[in-house]
Amino acid sequence: MVKIAPITESLPAFLAAHSFSQVAVVVDEHTKAHSYPLIQSLLPAHTLIEIKSGESEKTLDTASLIWEQLTEAAFDRHGLVINLGGGVIGDMGGFCAATYKRGLNFIQIPTTLLSQVDASVGGKLGIDFHGLKNHIGVFRIPDAVLIDATFLQTLPWRELRSGYAEVIKHCLIADAQQWEVIRQKDWREQDWTELITHSVAIKENVTTQDPTEKGLRKILNFGHTLGHAIETYFLEDPAKRLLHGEAIAAGMITEAYLSYQREWLTTEEFETITSYLLATYGKAEIPAETYPSIIELTAQDKKNRGKEIRFSLLNGLGSCRFDIPVSSEEMHQALAFYSGLS
Amino acid sequence: MVKIAPITESLPAFLAAHSFSQVAVVVDEHTKAHSYPLIQSLLPAHTLIEIKSGESEKTLDTASLIWEQLTEAAFDRHGLVINLGGGVIGDMGGFCAATYKRGLNFIQIPTTLLSQVDASVGGKLGIDFHGLKNHIGVFRIPDAVLIDATFLQTLPWRELRSGYAEVIKHCLIADAQQWEVIRQKDWREQDWTELITHSVAIKENVTTQDPTEKGLRKILNFGHTLGHAIETYFLEDPAKRLLHGEAIAAGMITEAYLSYQREWLTTEEFETITSYLLATYGKAEIPAETYPSIIELTAQDKKNRGKEIRFSLLNGLGSCRFDIPVSSEEMHQALAFYSGLS
Repeated sequence: MVKIAPITESLPAFLAAHSFSQVAVVVDEHTKAHSYPLIQSLLPAHTLIEIKSGESEKTLDTASLIWEQLTEAAFDRHGLVINLGGGVIGDMGGFCAATYKRGLNFIQIPTTLLSQVDASVGGKLGIDFHGLKNHIGVFRIPDAVLIDATFLQTLPWRELRSGYAEVIKHCLIADAQQWEVIRQKDWREQDWTELITHSVAIKENVTTQDPTEKGLRKILNFGHTLGHAIETYFLEDPAKRLLHGEAIAAGMITEAYLSYQREWLTTEEFETITSYLLATYGKAEIPAETYPSIIELTAQDKKNRGKEIRFSLLNGLGSCRFDIPVSSEEMHQALAFYSGLS
Repeated sequence: MVKIAPITESLPAFLAAHSFSQVAVVVDEHTKAHSYPLIQSLLPAHTLIEIKSGESEKTLDTASLIWEQLTEAAFDRHGLVINLGGGVIGDMGGFCAATYKRGLNFIQIPTTLLSQVDASVGGKLGIDFHGLKNHIGVFRIPDAVLIDATFLQTLPWRELRSGYAEVIKHCLIADAQQWEVIRQKDWREQDWTELITHSVAIKENVTTQDPTEKGLRKILNFGHTLGHAIETYFLEDPAKRLLHGEAIAAGMITEAYLSYQREWLTTEEFETITSYLLATYGKAEIPAETYPSIIELTAQDKKNRGKEIRFSLLNGLGSCRFDIPVSSEEMHQALAFYSGLS
């Protein structure tokens, strides 16, 4: 159940409709400072579990800390875990809840645009492992996802813009008309509640049809095969590290190029995508000597089958195909095209 | 799908009916030596993942080793993991498969009586955490469970007798008539294929009705609330360590006592249970000074709600009730009764 409403209404309504033996709230230092005050008074007595923020903390070690604190608080299976934060908190807190005693109740209160339009919907949970994103995890639908655009007011602008990449993706893969609407506007002028509602509807529709990503759900991965690889590659370099949406923007340009090469996009369609993404995100610096490592990282993508790297590619605006094999040479060309943009 | 048949028939049939990108086999040093030779020639090229045997190895560290080896072998989501061994291999190998890239295919080939009649059926997977049994895990039904009593021939007699405790439990909670049949025979004279078939049918029936243990499935925990606590308490002491079934035998006597105190068993029913279990397993030495620690360990039982310790207790022979609150005093009496037996 995804509820887009003021949290002061949705959270008390959810709690009143259930009976939990205990409640825990998972936060990081940012959401503890900025988001927790907005819900603290709405909650019964609870355990506060604080973890350090950042993708680099999304590890088995941090998961162990969460499991330990649930154990110390003697949580039973009738307890509720509330994950208050962005994608890292939602994915990891959800994974810990879904695996503690084989499954606690949990709800997501996403506080970033990225997690509101993407991570919190569809039941993908997990942690990174040996630098591989979401390598260990499960699928499980939360008991509720409570979304309130109010939380976005405390976000740094770069975080907000990062989340917008998933909004763009949802339009490109599933709604050409909405794409025409958003691309007329600068990202700072968008109506977030309206766009969140639109994105969540698309994501819920797709993930309900294919919860465990056997087929259709893979279209949500448009921009993510090269995008994830780029994000992972620069993860270790603090100076060049990209936010998820920034890497996905580069991923969408390079993967739109692969569609264009297959003549699944017209020149005009391809150029509007490229120019809007560049105008919004600028261009990431990806030197040619990094291509082989980035291409190698796509081998760990979960959509692959055997040694074949499989992409989800646009098939016209508002439409997407999946399980498309792409060769290393083609990826190299796509990255070179991106680097040549100005 | 649970198949009780010669492995030389069931495994080739399963593999022929599916198409996997890769195969891995998880073994420990015992099953590598005794069981793996029975299936090696039936398999395509595969990765062998060997872990150390024993409940004390059922940890996050060992799970990490399995995840690492799957990663090194570049396993994708179309791969198959075959867990060849007892409950530790099945629970942990299954947990690793179910969480690697959010879920690989996996099958269980249980090689101990305990895992054939219990652990391999019903989809409970997990690892121990901070000494708490199966504290981290998930529910997921394997793609197949292939059972062959031939594997039992290489088992030490104490292991075989340990597994028999779950056979007894299935009779006591669900089939009074079968209980009358087995209790006329010494455990060494039983027909294992027949008893495995009977036990699996009961377990499948219960777990299909209630896969995630919201209610009915809890009856399978008869003997396990105090039994697990006793097992956990003595885990650290190599001299007094009990096999799972040996601890569950003590658990069934003490919990049958709790049923008897509630007048849910007649004196005669209670005495036949006690005398058969004692004759089969002997009496574990549980000194009075350990009672408080054992009772405290029941607080971590997954069936509890809040501070209330809840048991599954016999309600006549062949019938079981669940969610029965039991006080510390009653547990103390039950343990004292057990220690006074001769």
